[in-house]
Amino acid sequence: MEHIDPAKLKAMGYEELETLCAEIRARLIATVTERGGHLASNLGAVELTVALHRAFDCPKDKLVFDVGHQAYVHKLLTGRNDRFGTLRTLGGLSGFPSREESEYDAFGGGHSSTSISAALGMARARDLRGGKEYVAAVIGDGALTGGMAYEALNDAGHTQTPLIVVLNDNEMSIAKNVGALNKSLARLRTKSGYLKLKSGISGRWPRLKAVLAHVRNNLKYLILPNTFFEELGFKYFGPVNGHDLRALDEAFCRVKRLERPVLVHVCTQKGRGYVLAEQNPEQFHGVAPFFSEAKGKKENGKSNSEVFGEALCLLAERDERIVALTAAMPKGTGLSGFAQRFPSRFFDVGIAEQHAVTLAAGLAAGGMKPCFAVYSAFLQRAVDQLFTDVCLQRLPVVFAVDRCGPVGEDGPTHHGGFDIAYLTAMPNLAVASPASQKELQKLLELGFACGRPFALRYGRGSLPEGEEAPVEFGRWQKVREGADLALVATGRMVQAVLAAAELLQNEQGRQAAVYNARFLKPMDAGALKELAGYPLVAAVEDEYPAGGLGEHLARALPGRPVHCFALPEKPLPAAAFEEQMALAGLTPEGLYKQITALWEEG
Amino acid sequence: MEHIDPAKLKAMGYEELETLCAEIRARLIATVTERGGHLASNLGAVELTVALHRAFDCPKDKLVFDVGHQAYVHKLLTGRNDRFGTLRTLGGLSGFPSREESEYDAFGGGHSSTSISAALGMARARDLRGGKEYVAAVIGDGALTGGMAYEALNDAGHTQTPLIVVLNDNEMSIAKNVGALNKSLARLRTKSGYLKLKSGISGRWPRLKAVLAHVRNNLKYLILPNTFFEELGFKYFGPVNGHDLRALDEAFCRVKRLERPVLVHVCTQKGRGYVLAEQNPEQFHGVAPFFSEAKGKKENGKSNSEVFGEALCLLAERDERIVALTAAMPKGTGLSGFAQRFPSRFFDVGIAEQHAVTLAAGLAAGGMKPCFAVYSAFLQRAVDQLFTDVCLQRLPVVFAVDRCGPVGEDGPTHHGGFDIAYLTAMPNLAVASPASQKELQKLLELGFACGRPFALRYGRGSLPEGEEAPVEFGRWQKVREGADLALVATGRMVQAVLAAAELLQNEQGRQAAVYNARFLKPMDAGALKELAGYPLVAAVEDEYPAGGLGEHLARALPGRPVHCFALPEKPLPAAAFEEQMALAGLTPEGLYKQITALWEEG
Repeated sequence: MEHIDPAKLKAMGYEELETLCAEIRARLIATVTERGGHLASNLGAVELTVALHRAFDCPKDKLVFDVGHQAYVHKLLTGRNDRFGTLRTLGGLSGFPSREESEYDAFGGGHSSTSISAALGMARARDLRGGKEYVAAVIGDGALTGGMAYEALNDAGHTQTPLIVVLNDNEMSIAKNVGALNKSLARLRTKSGYLKLKSGISGRWPRLKAVLAHVRNNLKYLILPNTFFEELGFKYFGPVNGHDLRALDEAFCRVKRLERPVLVHVCTQKGRGYVLAEQNPEQFHGVAPFFSEAKGKKENGKSNSEVFGEALCLLAERDERIVALTAAMPKGTGLSGFAQRFPSRFFDVGIAEQHAVTLAAGLAAGGMKPCFAVYSAFLQRAVDQLFTDVCLQRLPVVFAVDRCGPVGEDGPTHHGGFDIAYLTAMPNLAVASPASQKELQKLLELGFACGRPFALRYGRGSLPEGEEAPVEFGRWQKVREGADLALVATGRMVQAVLAAAELLQNEQGRQAAVYNARFLKPMDAGALKELAGYPLVAAVEDEYPAGGLGEHLARALPGRPVHCFALPEKPLPAAAFEEQMALAGLTPEGLYKQITALWEEG
Repeated sequence: MEHIDPAKLKAMGYEELETLCAEIRARLIATVTERGGHLASNLGAVELTVALHRAFDCPKDKLVFDVGHQAYVHKLLTGRNDRFGTLRTLGGLSGFPSREESEYDAFGGGHSSTSISAALGMARARDLRGGKEYVAAVIGDGALTGGMAYEALNDAGHTQTPLIVVLNDNEMSIAKNVGALNKSLARLRTKSGYLKLKSGISGRWPRLKAVLAHVRNNLKYLILPNTFFEELGFKYFGPVNGHDLRALDEAFCRVKRLERPVLVHVCTQKGRGYVLAEQNPEQFHGVAPFFSEAKGKKENGKSNSEVFGEALCLLAERDERIVALTAAMPKGTGLSGFAQRFPSRFFDVGIAEQHAVTLAAGLAAGGMKPCFAVYSAFLQRAVDQLFTDVCLQRLPVVFAVDRCGPVGEDGPTHHGGFDIAYLTAMPNLAVASPASQKELQKLLELGFACGRPFALRYGRGSLPEGEEAPVEFGRWQKVREGADLALVATGRMVQAVLAAAELLQNEQGRQAAVYNARFLKPMDAGALKELAGYPLVAAVEDEYPAGGLGEHLARALPGRPVHCFALPEKPLPAAAFEEQMALAGLTPEGLYKQITALWEEG
């Protein structure tokens, strides 16, 4: 595929465009199956993105892609074809739009449901400046289940700021989409008979088609019901076949004339053009590189998410009050098995973390034992609900906080970089972090037994299997003896720290004690007393340092030499997980070097 | 007013009930004007609450009040009439529903838009248990502008869990309500002609009235448009006159029979029955005790919010790129003046903090200089947007974070207890805290000038006026010399710490240096170097300690004796602000005692 300038697109005929779309699909499949990334959503958005760049003059006009994992096509069309092979690598292209990366990326992505707010801001700025550019937000039906998208629609509809919202409706979040609005969209999709009519005459009698299209488009607005979007002050326009470039061109041409908030409902097929992805869009939402997945398969093949999911099923068999919640990620969080075995006790609430947390609080108030499995970076959405609804009321909700610490290729928006800080700040919440899969199981059991809010944090990938051993609430484990210094590690860092301690012994003859800080809150008072006796103490954690384990230790031991080894204080870039740990100095070798430097400083 | 059991209500006739409602209003007005609290919303919900307790059998049935500041009537009717005089005092009744306080309070309140989620959780728990109780959420039209309410509606409508949502529509948030949905509600209110018809025949020909009501109620559902709520899977029922007990009884009787999600649209008047409050509902939303307000008026009468608002206007006169945002609190945040003077540059987005933050990011991306003024406890709602949309992209948004630290009578849900922690954890965000009103002005100016994300935090009430002096980015100010120990204070704590330092000198002859840590991030490297030379360092802040100034100092100065004086780690109860500071040991005397204890410990 050669370099494509957005301006060129406008001059191309439909046949040429269709060839281009086929080339783009081939490029997407070749690169993403090698590099990993988001496949199905991008395959579904090829024609839509081409049409957007035909309709609008970027970078003058502003396109905001919600979440942004469907913006690969946009990247290919805006001068990044040659660098596309560096996608999601250290120093390469981001997997999301990025203002730093290109002037064509009007706003960064990563988290869901933000695009309408951002676009509305740009539209208001334009109006204040007296500018003339168009601003469009491209949002999926999944992202529309997030409340802030509704907040933005409600605001824009109220003030009638001119703004184009393109609803890319593929009937999917990451998994099958949920929510009543989705049913409402389905009614719209079927009621008009638009898509059927369109395909029936596709290609033949272009004149007749144009006339029919005109009649149909004008009729449609008379017969369609008053929609959700119109109640919110938007002009509804659609549905449009998202794989028909002519229909898309026509639709965008029309809405550009309307100086008001307008929503264009575009129907697409996730995974379009790649049979495997069409049939299994959830599996192909985000894919690891095929090659490395085969190569990197560990002996202990179970991910922490899977271990969690299986442990939860075992506990749920014994206690029918246990229920599970997800915010649109049943598979990623390891809950698919639970969903199959206990469908009446499983709740997928959509991309709605705030609602999920308070729903869990309500379930607990009603006598259930809810477990909300969620990625660390997305629980950030519900910090307030965690505090007000769960922790202040001391309701027994278990949080299975997955993807803590660096997550690799998804980069800065997706690292679980803050959960130690925000979880340990909460009153009444116990916070634990397993160093092995066996410990994960035990701590989960303890979490349900302790009758109070409980958070269990673990990273992406696999912890070592570990050994069967009891765990005690609020107690740490001394996993290595030594008198020269004490290293306090949590979660997956325990393994790395043990290896660093071996290096210290082998290279320098220094004996480091190692503590497994299983509980970040409450901390182990007995262990703290022991730590006060060491000439040097270092805390090791895989998150940003502010409000982390190291700072809590430093506060608990005033006057003691407590050092903090954590992620650097600036955002950790996208890269392979191992590269990120090396960048942060958190590998055994990196830790060994940092500790040695401390001795040398005195 | 005598003790009222909810069971008694069911046996009372309408005349008796009307007398009761009048008594309740008198009790509300007498108590709230003395104690302070929420007046207008409770006056508007008198008949509604009486009708709810007639329709439902609490505590078996569950009532969840959104926010909960309209639950005073509920408290009076559920065994708390005798203690109502202790409202919002230390050890007294909470200003919000509280599970600890009464079994009638099914779920706690405080923050907006959570009730439908919580009620849905209880309804699902009921269904899993095979229970038969009713669950109802009572939510205002203002709270419906919050996205999580929509998330919950979308979820409940999808699964069709039986649930009653009572929309208490008074056309107000705290201020005049905004949002497109509000216009839609207004159409419903007027379209049916229900209220007019009702009042026309009120009182006369009761039989005819009953027949008419029957016909009307059945007709209404045929002629009303397909509403927003029906698109979300709810059965819409209303509008019902919220001051007509007969109409309310009839409505609740009907909806109890429907085993599905149903929304009852009840129209009420905020401030009903108290002319002053009817005419000025925003002013009477939350009131300070009238007597003490007169008494406590300080010489320097300007609140920090007012000082901020005036300073913002001055800056906005000189730079037309400055725009201001509020999430439904123009008055509380000090933005009323700005809204009047620069209406086109002022955006009230509803109770929608998430949207507000990303909207501000969009405005900044569009070349504006947005300032979002918000209470610390409510910015908790948007931590993720702050991180992803503003800070990661380094967009120049200024956050005027008000009500930091203890806030007095509103209690644990409303303290700004975490903002130092969550703000200083953000990459690229500068965080400053003025110790005087003059400093607030200077720092605000600096915030707009620095071209990066900037947060300015200050508490409720008034800082000392202070003196005209330059402030420098990232630099602290040494406000007192001394060699025996160093005290590092931020914001309003500087004043208390200076007084404590005087006590140390007068009582013990000890000389304490005092630093005004104007910047919590970045910290002043030069000052840190000086601090390393002191035999004792104490950090003083008015928030919870995890992730606070003290911990950051302790991390920056490993091996130095850094002590943290902050709020205790458990939620600070509702009380007068002065009582709270005394409880926390943060008065000059309390600090003096704590510091003395450090010396004694050695």
